[in-house]
Amino acid sequence: MPGNSFGKIFRITTFGESHGSAIGVIIDGVPAGLPLSEEDINFELQFRKPGSLYTSPRKEEDIAKILSGVFNGKTIGAPITIVVENRDVVSKHYEELKFTPRPNHADMAYISKYGFENWDYRGGGRASGRETVARVAAGAVAKKLLMLIGTQVAACVESMGEEVVSNSISFEDALASRCLTTRACKKEYDSRFRALLDHVIEEGDSVGAIVRVIGIGIPRGLGEPVFDKIKADLAKAMLSIPGVIGFEIGLGFKAALERGSKLMDELIVRNGEIHWKYNFYGGVLGGITIGEPLLFRVAFKPTSSIRKPMKTIDLRTLKEVEIVVRGRHDPCIGIRGAAVVEAMTAIVLVDHAMRAGLISTVRISQRDVEAINEGWERYKRNACLGRDINS
Amino acid sequence: MPGNSFGKIFRITTFGESHGSAIGVIIDGVPAGLPLSEEDINFELQFRKPGSLYTSPRKEEDIAKILSGVFNGKTIGAPITIVVENRDVVSKHYEELKFTPRPNHADMAYISKYGFENWDYRGGGRASGRETVARVAAGAVAKKLLMLIGTQVAACVESMGEEVVSNSISFEDALASRCLTTRACKKEYDSRFRALLDHVIEEGDSVGAIVRVIGIGIPRGLGEPVFDKIKADLAKAMLSIPGVIGFEIGLGFKAALERGSKLMDELIVRNGEIHWKYNFYGGVLGGITIGEPLLFRVAFKPTSSIRKPMKTIDLRTLKEVEIVVRGRHDPCIGIRGAAVVEAMTAIVLVDHAMRAGLISTVRISQRDVEAINEGWERYKRNACLGRDINS
Amino acid sequence: MPGNSFGKIFRITTFGESHGSAIGVIIDGVPAGLPLSEEDINFELQFRKPGSLYTSPRKEEDIAKILSGVFNGKTIGAPITIVVENRDVVSKHYEELKFTPRPNHADMAYISKYGFENWDYRGGGRASGRETVARVAAGAVAKKLLMLIGTQVAACVESMGEEVVSNSISFEDALASRCLTTRACKKEYDSRFRALLDHVIEEGDSVGAIVRVIGIGIPRGLGEPVFDKIKADLAKAMLSIPGVIGFEIGLGFKAALERGSKLMDELIVRNGEIHWKYNFYGGVLGGITIGEPLLFRVAFKPTSSIRKPMKTIDLRTLKEVEIVVRGRHDPCIGIRGAAVVEAMTAIVLVDHAMRAGLISTVRISQRDVEAINEGWERYKRNACLGRDINS
Amino acid sequence: MPGNSFGKIFRITTFGESHGSAIGVIIDGVPAGLPLSEEDINFELQFRKPGSLYTSPRKEEDIAKILSGVFNGKTIGAPITIVVENRDVVSKHYEELKFTPRPNHADMAYISKYGFENWDYRGGGRASGRETVARVAAGAVAKKLLMLIGTQVAACVESMGEEVVSNSISFEDALASRCLTTRACKKEYDSRFRALLDHVIEEGDSVGAIVRVIGIGIPRGLGEPVFDKIKADLAKAMLSIPGVIGFEIGLGFKAALERGSKLMDELIVRNGEIHWKYNFYGGVLGGITIGEPLLFRVAFKPTSSIRKPMKTIDLRTLKEVEIVVRGRHDPCIGIRGAAVVEAMTAIVLVDHAMRAGLISTVRISQRDVEAINEGWERYKRNACLGRDINS
Repeated sequence: MPGNSFGKIFRITTFGESHGSAIGVIIDGVPAGLPLSEEDINFELQFRKPGSLYTSPRKEEDIAKILSGVFNGKTIGAPITIVVENRDVVSKHYEELKFTPRPNHADMAYISKYGFENWDYRGGGRASGRETVARVAAGAVAKKLLMLIGTQVAACVESMGEEVVSNSISFEDALASRCLTTRACKKEYDSRFRALLDHVIEEGDSVGAIVRVIGIGIPRGLGEPVFDKIKADLAKAMLSIPGVIGFEIGLGFKAALERGSKLMDELIVRNGEIHWKYNFYGGVLGGITIGEPLLFRVAFKPTSSIRKPMKTIDLRTLKEVEIVVRGRHDPCIGIRGAAVVEAMTAIVLVDHAMRAGLISTVRISQRDVEAINEGWERYKRNACLGRDINS
Repeated sequence: MPGNSFGKIFRITTFGESHGSAIGVIIDGVPAGLPLSEEDINFELQFRKPGSLYTSPRKEEDIAKILSGVFNGKTIGAPITIVVENRDVVSKHYEELKFTPRPNHADMAYISKYGFENWDYRGGGRASGRETVARVAAGAVAKKLLMLIGTQVAACVESMGEEVVSNSISFEDALASRCLTTRACKKEYDSRFRALLDHVIEEGDSVGAIVRVIGIGIPRGLGEPVFDKIKADLAKAMLSIPGVIGFEIGLGFKAALERGSKLMDELIVRNGEIHWKYNFYGGVLGGITIGEPLLFRVAFKPTSSIRKPMKTIDLRTLKEVEIVVRGRHDPCIGIRGAAVVEAMTAIVLVDHAMRAGLISTVRISQRDVEAINEGWERYKRNACLGRDINS
Repeated sequence: MPGNSFGKIFRITTFGESHGSAIGVIIDGVPAGLPLSEEDINFELQFRKPGSLYTSPRKEEDIAKILSGVFNGKTIGAPITIVVENRDVVSKHYEELKFTPRPNHADMAYISKYGFENWDYRGGGRASGRETVARVAAGAVAKKLLMLIGTQVAACVESMGEEVVSNSISFEDALASRCLTTRACKKEYDSRFRALLDHVIEEGDSVGAIVRVIGIGIPRGLGEPVFDKIKADLAKAMLSIPGVIGFEIGLGFKAALERGSKLMDELIVRNGEIHWKYNFYGGVLGGITIGEPLLFRVAFKPTSSIRKPMKTIDLRTLKEVEIVVRGRHDPCIGIRGAAVVEAMTAIVLVDHAMRAGLISTVRISQRDVEAINEGWERYKRNACLGRDINS
Repeated sequence: MPGNSFGKIFRITTFGESHGSAIGVIIDGVPAGLPLSEEDINFELQFRKPGSLYTSPRKEEDIAKILSGVFNGKTIGAPITIVVENRDVVSKHYEELKFTPRPNHADMAYISKYGFENWDYRGGGRASGRETVARVAAGAVAKKLLMLIGTQVAACVESMGEEVVSNSISFEDALASRCLTTRACKKEYDSRFRALLDHVIEEGDSVGAIVRVIGIGIPRGLGEPVFDKIKADLAKAMLSIPGVIGFEIGLGFKAALERGSKLMDELIVRNGEIHWKYNFYGGVLGGITIGEPLLFRVAFKPTSSIRKPMKTIDLRTLKEVEIVVRGRHDPCIGIRGAAVVEAMTAIVLVDHAMRAGLISTVRISQRDVEAINEGWERYKRNACLGRDINS
């Protein structure tokens, strides 16, 4: 049954397999009048692009092509189709692993569900993290729309294995992480994360990570009781990302250890508006945003593919065998995962902003177009503070 | 925009406010031929019923009435409507708090979203935990359907505040928790949890909890790539429950601290079938169930309402004031929350089993009816091991 | 699989069987602040109520009860549940027909689909026209919301059997039909329709009808390309009504006989606004409303239950038998069907007005509340021009 | 708000504009294991391809490219993306009409809804009939899946303007219409239709048509009460096609003129199975298929673009002007529309067959693959009886 779509108004459907001809996304529900170019999408794609020392050596240019929905540089209210070709495809490593499914991967799950004879074993097929390039492309559109209401989101790597960023993390920190090879939440932790990664790579191992997300300029009233709470839709969005196995909003699991009196917030008046003094629950109460910053964390498991030998079964003989997975893999999927987390967050927020009537479902006025264009230029400048990425 | 429905095939829509005339649910998508009685639903409702020492003193009988969809004791393929009347309603405490929203509650969120003049301030209105009675009612139907494929789920309280059940927890433990006042995952922890609760109640405080869920007899192949992964739909289901602020599957956040080599599972053959040796990721790979037990954890925040004074704002004056919330509240919402967690888990699983074609979307055969009836009787006997609940 | 819901934003789910305890509807997606009372719903219900000479002698009071979603006379943004009890239920006639399905009815369809043993044979069960009471109840809410944008719809019986209203029909005619026993589109045809019905009843027969719908104050821009065109959603809404077997918009089937040059409309300027001179296509071009009146027609088949003997099969013997259906039936379902057609039209329009951002999905301002109240009072006065219905 | 998707399980989303770079479709929900090639899709596309004497002179090769979801010649359970490039694009005729909207077209509707500045005026943009190439592509997949249950559908032109095929039309007639230039329901009417078209073309005019659809091998039990009745979903599917303005099932509008006693069907036993003697209502009762042939009719309006001068408004001056539309247009859209009608019918039926559990939502067995391959070869041979199309 179909499961490749997400969102109610801003509705994305992704397609494509790791070693197929292309990965792509249709976005239905974008209002007419949004300025949109392939450059906008490519700008975002670079933040999840493989190819640096600390990411998979697969070299994809990841150039987006817009097939529909844009005319004269603006959306027209029709579905937007974005396609990214797969070019640097090396399938031969997978041919030999066809009968020896990788134990921590989706291999056996797909074989059981769809049948061995219908399994695209090349690079994980549909289960590959490569699918997320489509999400980041859609996230670019979502981010541009969020400019209409002044909402911004940023994600960074808060912990990598046992290394944890200990200081408090600001939105600016999270945004600035885009300039760091490891996407560390604080610049000073970048070298520690790099050292860890060097060690992990040397050992042919991988490592888990926790990604922190901060949203600012969040309007009040996002989230629809009782099932489409904003925390529920964010949780679904995050857990739909390959490798994500945990989500917590605000204090999350830590709050479960506490007394209510310790986590009792206080309403205060600031600049004539009601605010919360502590924002213990990450900007959400009753499943609805309260106008405070949105704060949540996402757990990524260590990359399932490592260079060390793995024990598995040969499907032809049902005998135990040991395999070595070659392919090309990230030592820590949380690094590039941060871009995906950001994109999915923006997608959830824009969908809910449209559900709440804060962004038009039909068309954008000329004045708003200018505001978006200015905001986007500012965002691009801030996104990496003028420095090269991965340099 | 509507947000009160959940599920694609087994689709529930809940309705009702805390102090309105009734709480209820429509379940659309139940196949014809399922034996179903009001007793079946009442059996499940007793596990979230308020009224014991350690739960809210609100005394609701919680008697389900089936308004539609059942004829001669069996479902007919039409929507099933279940209504539970609200009887023990005391709204006067809320009248006085109308202008002084409780800081940790949904009050301000609803006021901002829907307008003060449209806010049902009585007992939390639609945001009340009382809405979950409808989920547990629907969960009873889901659990009966899951008997068709031998799937069972159970939830228990793994930690309450700083008290943590340290031994490994089995499905039987989780099921047996139903007989314990505190729903502790191990019987020997029940007294420790009770001591903690006594202390918390005495102080007019509340405490958080972590609920563990174990599913057995999980078929392979549940979960639809790439957005409706089973982990994604479970996360959404859990985060849609009032008071839930965290979800992790398998090792979850702990895995984020680890190396891939430490969490490398192994495929083995057991009884001629392929299995995973460690099941680190809670029975799910690639977002699809693999036939191993389903394991996840849910974080509940401490009850927001405590008897201690809270600082808030008077909406008429925008001045800070201190309030004392009376009403009737649980010291630890995780206890009754366990029943809700179980129900929502069953709802997700049955929806996905129908999506995967493992349970008919149309009708149940006569032979299956008998299997369900037998299974249900067995379940009821096991559910509390023959002892009284809360005794 | 679930099929009992309709609409994307203004979303209704109906429930109940003909001889079950109640018929009802949940409406999810109604903004907060809409004034709503049981009287509002009862006002609409009277126009489909059985009990006159020319409708089924089943005597249902059809009193609506609101179970949720309304507080202090206004909606609160939560799902609205409306229940109408079934009281005048006489099931005995159906007991004897259990094994001899009525050939023109849904009987065999339901038996084949859901199984004979799961078939609610009493009065058609879920397939009964009685289900439409829930639609008319929801239609009342839709009509009140449409007052926000000045949109009104009215339906009347344009032809009954061979008797056809030959003059051109105005919106006022359609509205005034509510005061006529036969709901004729012109008052002067009421007596002709009555004479036809007298004859039909005397012969124990039934007769088909065509219902005309006129909508005024239709905003431009309703309808979403390319599948949720307004004509597509109206067609679905109409064909979902029991007994409806045809739909045409504007000139419909007549246009198929014509040349393009004969049906070429002209754009003109009227009061400074662009209009269409002829409106051949019923106010819709490209599947989107153009601001001209909405015009369509709906074909109702003759009531399937007549008092004449029918040839069928005894399911126990598979032998041909002749049966006489007693029960209580309308000689022409188009008469009461007009109220259902009107309700479903209003539901489609309000859903699309919300999709197009013309009606808030969240809440209604106080000023709008007053406008709605005034509009509704005016509507009630006009609806039957001060005279008794069916008098 | 999104409206470019159709279907619940077999779910299509189309994209692309008339003069954009490509038209395409994503099909989500196709089970794994279906043999599928670009040739399969191209085979179907040829039946709606423009380029003959009696269709638009736009010369599109209409070659389908599959971008995702197929591996080794079979579907893998992932979304299938099919793209057809637009090549023969001539936009210059439209540039000059930009300020003078064509009165019978979607022009003004799109301008009003999305804004003049966001309007893709080239060839109708998203409103163009060219979008239906995506539907026919998806229809090819649907038809292959329907082979699993032996269901076939065929459509033909029953009347063109005042010319009406008077004999009764069989499924074979409808299928054979594919070999006729005019797609007439009977071969002997092809020349009459051609004569009419010659005349119409000469006059620079266009003409309407009625398309008849016949489905055979329809299983019992398709259609979900009460809104997703099969007749309701068919009506929506048909009215979503550009130019369609009427739908009737079985006797449709004719039945509205009749007495119930004249249209009383009879249940009979044929080959040990219960059947209906007359099938007055086109194979559907209570909104559910009954195992009899599916019969319905669809009204197409005359092509809106004719070569005769049209009266319209210049948007810059709001003055009346006369325009002549050049572009390239069909004299009768019903001819190529028949292929679209067929495709949409197949899409509705396969979606409902999956909803009813008659076709797997997950994967197709190897045995079924062979049955599909054989059936498809047979279908291709029969589809045009071995003769050239348009010869």
